[in-house]
Amino acid sequence: MNRKFADDWLNTPIAATDKLFTQFAQKRQMQLTKPPESLGRLEEVAIHLATLQHTHKPSIDSVFITIFAGDHGIAAENVSAFPQSVTVEMIKNFARSGAAINVLAKAQNATLEIINLGTVSDTSAMSIVRNYNLGLGTANFLYQPAMTADQLETAMHAGHDAIERIQNNRNPLFIGGEMGIGNTTSATALACCLLNIPPAQLTGSGTGLDAQGIAHKTRVITEALVLHQHNIDSPLEALRRLGGFEIAALTGAYLRCAQIGIPILIDGFISTVAALLAESIKPGCQHWFIYSHVSQEKGHRLVLDKLNAQPLLDLQMRLGEGSGAAVAISLLRLACQLHNEMATFTEAQVSEKI
Amino acid sequence: MNRKFADDWLNTPIAATDKLFTQFAQKRQMQLTKPPESLGRLEEVAIHLATLQHTHKPSIDSVFITIFAGDHGIAAENVSAFPQSVTVEMIKNFARSGAAINVLAKAQNATLEIINLGTVSDTSAMSIVRNYNLGLGTANFLYQPAMTADQLETAMHAGHDAIERIQNNRNPLFIGGEMGIGNTTSATALACCLLNIPPAQLTGSGTGLDAQGIAHKTRVITEALVLHQHNIDSPLEALRRLGGFEIAALTGAYLRCAQIGIPILIDGFISTVAALLAESIKPGCQHWFIYSHVSQEKGHRLVLDKLNAQPLLDLQMRLGEGSGAAVAISLLRLACQLHNEMATFTEAQVSEKI
Repeated sequence: MNRKFADDWLNTPIAATDKLFTQFAQKRQMQLTKPPESLGRLEEVAIHLATLQHTHKPSIDSVFITIFAGDHGIAAENVSAFPQSVTVEMIKNFARSGAAINVLAKAQNATLEIINLGTVSDTSAMSIVRNYNLGLGTANFLYQPAMTADQLETAMHAGHDAIERIQNNRNPLFIGGEMGIGNTTSATALACCLLNIPPAQLTGSGTGLDAQGIAHKTRVITEALVLHQHNIDSPLEALRRLGGFEIAALTGAYLRCAQIGIPILIDGFISTVAALLAESIKPGCQHWFIYSHVSQEKGHRLVLDKLNAQPLLDLQMRLGEGSGAAVAISLLRLACQLHNEMATFTEAQVSEKI
Repeated sequence: MNRKFADDWLNTPIAATDKLFTQFAQKRQMQLTKPPESLGRLEEVAIHLATLQHTHKPSIDSVFITIFAGDHGIAAENVSAFPQSVTVEMIKNFARSGAAINVLAKAQNATLEIINLGTVSDTSAMSIVRNYNLGLGTANFLYQPAMTADQLETAMHAGHDAIERIQNNRNPLFIGGEMGIGNTTSATALACCLLNIPPAQLTGSGTGLDAQGIAHKTRVITEALVLHQHNIDSPLEALRRLGGFEIAALTGAYLRCAQIGIPILIDGFISTVAALLAESIKPGCQHWFIYSHVSQEKGHRLVLDKLNAQPLLDLQMRLGEGSGAAVAISLLRLACQLHNEMATFTEAQVSEKI
C-alpha cells in the first residue's frame, strides 16, 4: 500500500515482556503442593500472565470485551446461511442484552462495549452503540477492494481507540469479538492470502452452510484472490482489499494492546485471522496473545497451527461475538488463583518427590 | 463376593431422567439467537442438566466437593514417585486450605468436605476431617485382597452417607475427589480387570514415575492380576481385591447420587475408574455423569472411551483431588446461564437461517 497512515501509531514498538518473571513463576509452580506440572495448561497460563504483567502475583482484575460489527459487500454473493439484515439485528440484540456474549459478559463480570463500524442500516438511535458510519458495509471484494485506504485507517484506529479507553484499569484483559454476516468469507480469503493456502483447505460452513454452499463460497474466495493477489504487497493491503471493517478494528485493537502491554484473549476463527494480521504487520505481537479455544469453523485449527497456538478449550463452539474467549476467562482467573494461593511444600510441611 | 451387604441400599434403583425435558431444552436451544448448535458442548451440557433436573431452567445452585482419602498397601512396592507419608500430609494440607482443591473450591463457591477412610498415621486431631479409621491403609494387593468385605462395605457406605448429607440442597452438583499415594496403581488394576485390557496399555506415570518406574508398576499390576483374576466374579469383588478405601467410597457416593438424582461431575483417572465401577455395579448410573476432563494419566482416555465419555476439558492436568472437575464447574454454570438468559429469535426480532 503506497499511502502512508496519517498518524504514526503503527510505528510504536511492541511492549517488552520480562523473562525474569517467567523464571520466578516457573520456580513457584515447582514449589506448590502438587506433582510438578500436574496443573498442566493452568500452570502455563499463570506463568504467561506473570511474564506479561511483570509480577509475582498474576491477576485478571478487569475484563473488557469489545464487539466490532460491520457489514460486508461480499454478502451479496450468497456466502452466508443468514440474511445480511442479521448484522444490524444482532447489534440491536447486543444493545438489549439478549445475545450469548451479553450473558457471558455479565456472568464473568466483564465490561461490554459495542461498536458499529458501518452497516447497511443505521444503529445511531441506540445510545449504547458507538457508531463510526464508515459506509453501508464494505465493497464487494469479488469485484473491487473491500475498503478505501481511509476506511481501513479509520477502522483500525477505532480498535486503537477502544484500547486507549481501557488502558488505565488495573490488570486488564482484552477480548475482541465480532459480528458481520459474510465475515468468515472475508477472514478465509485473508488467511488464504497471508498463509498461501488454497481456499478449499480453509473454507468452512460459517453460520451453517451446507456442502453446496461451502463449494460456492470456496469458488467466490478463489475468484476474489485471483483478482487481488498480484496487487497485494503487504498485510495491510491484504486487509484493505479482502477484509472487513470489524476485522480491521480487531487488528488495530490487538496491535494497540501489544504496544501498551495489555494481555489479549483471542476468540475464534475471525479473531485469530485478525491476530495473524496483527502479527504479520508487527512481528512480536503474539507474545501478548492467549488463545482461548479452537472453533468448529474448518480453517481455525490450521490458522492456529500456523501461529504455533495451542488454544485452551475445544468446546465445539462456532458462534463468534468473542463467546469462546468469554468462556475461557474462568480458566485464566483460576490459573492465577492457584498460582497465588496454594501452599508450598515448605509451608504445608508436605514431602517432595522421591 | 458371597457375602451380602448388611443393608440393601445398593438395591435401590437408579433415579429416572426425563426425556420430555430433553426435548424442551433442545427446542429452546434452537430458538436462541445464535446459529443452531453454535454453542457446541455448552448446549449439550445445558440439555443434559435440564433432563436430569426435570426443568426448563437448569441451574447449578450448590456444589459439594468431597475428598476421600486412604492409604494403600501396594505403596510398599515402590509404585509412586512420592512417599506414602504424603497421603496424610496432604490431608493436613486440605484441612489448612493449602491445596489446589481448596483454592478451586473457594473460587467456585463450593463446599469442601474431607474424609479420611484409613491411613498409616492418624488425622483425628483435625476436627475438620471426618475419620473412619478403616485400618492403616488397605492390604498389599500384590499378596492378598486389598480389603475385607467389612472394610469394603463401610467404605462404600461412607460415600453413600456423604451424599445423604447434601441431598436436601437446591439443585446440587456433586464432585468426588481422592487422595491416596499408590491409588493410580489400584485404579489401573481395576480398569484392567473390568475392561480386560493388558496393564501395559493402561499403566501411567501417576504422580511422576519415569519410564523405569512405569515398567516396574506395570509388572506389579500384572502379577497382582494373576493372583486375583480367577477369584473375581463381580465388580464388587474386583473393588474389594484391587481397590482402595477412597475408590470404594467414591463408587458408593456415585451410586447414591444416581439413586437419588444428583448430577455428578466426574474428575480424572481414579474418579473415572470409580464411575466405571458404579456403572458396572448398577448399569444406568452413567446417565447422571458429566465428564469434566481428560487427564494426562495414560489410561484415562481409554477408560473414558469405554464409557463413551466425551470430557469437556483437556488441560493436561493430572493432579487428582477433584481438581479437573472443580475447574469445569464454570462451564456448567455458563451453559445454564446461556440456556436460561439468552433471547430467542422472536423476542429479539432477529431473522432466522435462510
